[in-house]
Amino acid sequence: MTVSDEERIARVTINIVTEPGDLRCLGLTRELGGIRFLEVLREQPDLRPAFVAAAGRLAGAQPERVLEDAARRGIRFVVPGDDEWPSSLDDLADAGMLHARGEVPVGLWVRGPIRIDRLGAAVAVVGSRSSTSYGDEVAGDMAAVLGAAGWTVVSGAAYGVDYAAHRGAVTADGRTVAVLACGVDRPYPLAHRQMLDHLGEHHAVVSEAPPGSAPLSIRFLARNRLIAALTRGTVVVEAAVRSGALNTASWADRMHRTVMGVPGPVVSAASEGVHELIRAGGASLVTCGDDVLELLGAPGEHLLDVRRAPEAPRDRLTIRARQVLDAVPVSSPASAASVARVAGLGADEVEQLLDGLARDGHVERLPSGWRLGEDARSTIDQ
Amino acid sequence: MTVSDEERIARVTINIVTEPGDLRCLGLTRELGGIRFLEVLREQPDLRPAFVAAAGRLAGAQPERVLEDAARRGIRFVVPGDDEWPSSLDDLADAGMLHARGEVPVGLWVRGPIRIDRLGAAVAVVGSRSSTSYGDEVAGDMAAVLGAAGWTVVSGAAYGVDYAAHRGAVTADGRTVAVLACGVDRPYPLAHRQMLDHLGEHHAVVSEAPPGSAPLSIRFLARNRLIAALTRGTVVVEAAVRSGALNTASWADRMHRTVMGVPGPVVSAASEGVHELIRAGGASLVTCGDDVLELLGAPGEHLLDVRRAPEAPRDRLTIRARQVLDAVPVSSPASAASVARVAGLGADEVEQLLDGLARDGHVERLPSGWRLGEDARSTIDQ
Repeated sequence: MTVSDEERIARVTINIVTEPGDLRCLGLTRELGGIRFLEVLREQPDLRPAFVAAAGRLAGAQPERVLEDAARRGIRFVVPGDDEWPSSLDDLADAGMLHARGEVPVGLWVRGPIRIDRLGAAVAVVGSRSSTSYGDEVAGDMAAVLGAAGWTVVSGAAYGVDYAAHRGAVTADGRTVAVLACGVDRPYPLAHRQMLDHLGEHHAVVSEAPPGSAPLSIRFLARNRLIAALTRGTVVVEAAVRSGALNTASWADRMHRTVMGVPGPVVSAASEGVHELIRAGGASLVTCGDDVLELLGAPGEHLLDVRRAPEAPRDRLTIRARQVLDAVPVSSPASAASVARVAGLGADEVEQLLDGLARDGHVERLPSGWRLGEDARSTIDQ
Repeated sequence: MTVSDEERIARVTINIVTEPGDLRCLGLTRELGGIRFLEVLREQPDLRPAFVAAAGRLAGAQPERVLEDAARRGIRFVVPGDDEWPSSLDDLADAGMLHARGEVPVGLWVRGPIRIDRLGAAVAVVGSRSSTSYGDEVAGDMAAVLGAAGWTVVSGAAYGVDYAAHRGAVTADGRTVAVLACGVDRPYPLAHRQMLDHLGEHHAVVSEAPPGSAPLSIRFLARNRLIAALTRGTVVVEAAVRSGALNTASWADRMHRTVMGVPGPVVSAASEGVHELIRAGGASLVTCGDDVLELLGAPGEHLLDVRRAPEAPRDRLTIRARQVLDAVPVSSPASAASVARVAGLGADEVEQLLDGLARDGHVERLPSGWRLGEDARSTIDQ
């Protein structure tokens, strides 16, 4: 371990007295280190307006106790310099701010056996809390495919798409990580206590906010940047025009991650934000887990087979047989001579080919002549 | 009229003895004119294999009679040089071939009062014959918006999207044109006889195939190029992976028309071809008629309002009030002092702002402190 106890305690302190995503305090901690920034906060609390509130909370902070309490409950605090620190988070240093939130966190609270530096290939599956059953189904199927392919799914813990994504990954024996806006020990929403306990025991639950912290709107906005930073790409499954999932997509875009969107019915408000994102070029259209793997895989990996139309019976015909088939009327029968004229082939050859086509059901012979067989009539698509 | 009777009759003859989209015969007619190409066909029928079949039919051709019969039934034959000839069709000269079909037609058979050189701004709305009710609904709504905006809708006459598009345009008192693979006097499919009669009486029904011609597969492929050529852009509403609508989209793309696709549920096979097209960059995603107008309109016309999220109550708050609101817990109440700390504002100011926020229902005061109001709790979207 290369991080000194003093630095770790300093970072816990800063974490306790600041809000997640506090640009000034986090930025200076990144530049100066925890110990030095804490000195600044103690000695020059009026250096910047942003420091005043944080400095005011220093007296009540009990970092050792918070860290011990957490450890007793299986919660660790991972900071830059730790083996477990994911270098992908450092991209937040250059990602600017959204809603006045941003920067590399001073540390992350983690509960669960998955090491967050070893998420491997990870992908965020996010979307609306007020998803439709369509959105839930797509998110679940997609997460299952990703999980089964060895990818780690990352999401929040909200109703709707978040829940469906974790569930899909777990069902497929895949790995999945929940990043929360509140403390990792707080089941929010309460209805997801069981899921969060399962993730905390077998996967990982992560938060920038210290244990015990409440879910505040502002913390959701700060949380979204972590979901984007921890993953190679973000898939938005359903999102209305005003949706937090689009905030996550913006963060992903800023960090040059791949942003993907799942289309849905254009009459569904739950897909409106995603359609807008695709339309504006802000996201690639994906329809399934394989599409995601194709976009995110390293070159040569997961190359998706070009989706071909299912082979139709006519694909197996010779070119000349097809030429004849194309010249046979759909409904009203025509003579072999007429078919030959349209096809531009000799009458004898056409008679022979028509017999062969009839054997395979491509055409049928009526007393008045030839027309397409029943299957061909019903599958012809103008 | 600048087209001589002799040239017109020559073109009718060529039209009768060749198949729609016959590359060689149509290409040479374009280069040499109808009179000269007919001489070639008569005098040197063995010049090219493609000529043999056509030349063999010359003896039986009765062009004057076909033209007179057609005229008696209100069907005219429009050829290059006529005032009514749409110059947009000439783009087919450079559009190559698909499925061995292509080229500028030698003429078009037209039934109905709309002059095909005056379609004005026209847009093709095409899609699967086996559409879903979702696809029909979207096609109908879109065509109604386009029709009401003064655009001419162009489509085939098949079941599904084609029918829904014509119906939508007619409902909105818009103009709509059906381009057929069979003769303009043949109701195909039979179930659309009434619609085709309505279009023939009040709009226009168009075909390259002479009156009486049967619907052959090969003629649908030739027909698709006309739909693309007559319009500024093609919208594919629903299309399975193997769908004729994608053939129309390819023609539109070759002629540098705008290709658009309507997304749908990813679980719907009827949308699979459209998603693939959007994914591959072959079509812009559109969700409604206004999207189409924005993409096709001349610069400055039909500029779509940027779709904004509906204004939320919090948008009307001052920045400081929002700062306080963002610091109020979602569920478990917190004291005003705690809210002030998180917000980084003075306690007195925060008390005042909380009172104001409570009056508008943004927050609520419980015995144990402040939390978000019910509306805010239910609309917060992680």
